[in-house]
Amino acid sequence: MTPEEAQAALDELRRQIDVLDLQILDLLNRRALAAAQIGDVKKAAALPVYEPKREEEVFHNVTSHNGGPLSESAVRRLFERIIDEMRLLQRERLRKEHER
Amino acid sequence: MTPEEAQAALDELRRQIDVLDLQILDLLNRRALAAAQIGDVKKAAALPVYEPKREEEVFHNVTSHNGGPLSESAVRRLFERIIDEMRLLQRERLRKEHER
Repeated sequence: MTPEEAQAALDELRRQIDVLDLQILDLLNRRALAAAQIGDVKKAAALPVYEPKREEEVFHNVTSHNGGPLSESAVRRLFERIIDEMRLLQRERLRKEHER
Repeated sequence: MTPEEAQAALDELRRQIDVLDLQILDLLNRRALAAAQIGDVKKAAALPVYEPKREEEVFHNVTSHNGGPLSESAVRRLFERIIDEMRLLQRERLRKEHER
């Protein structure tokens, strides 16, 4: 592989990654919207915010459908971060509401 | 909102989240494959593995296209986790190759 061929291959793969990242970003934001709606329903119905059982369902859904190359533990860590960020966003929304 | 209506709304939103999660999982695995291919090209061409400038490009790509509700810092933290996991996977692959 010449340096020029290597550079062309890297450029193409990076272009693919940039496209994938924007799709991932879009889905993460759509997920955040749905999670926020769940928060609103729970608030309206005075249901508990934190449900560990549902969290396990989320992990089970993704790890049981994982075809790799990411490992099960990698998938779990990624979705822990995702759930954490949705929770932070929810907390921020509630804080802003209280300030109104 | 009756408890039954709340439950029906939660069920529907959770169904949506489960579908989004499988789409996110699929894209994360496709991204991991592309990142692994980048690792292979770099190795074949004896190029440096770590390129901080490219990492900043990745963050810039996603934060500049973020329409929310996730904040810029949330998006950055999520993609830091994603990049970390791809790096771990790459390290694992190289370790296994050396063992052969």
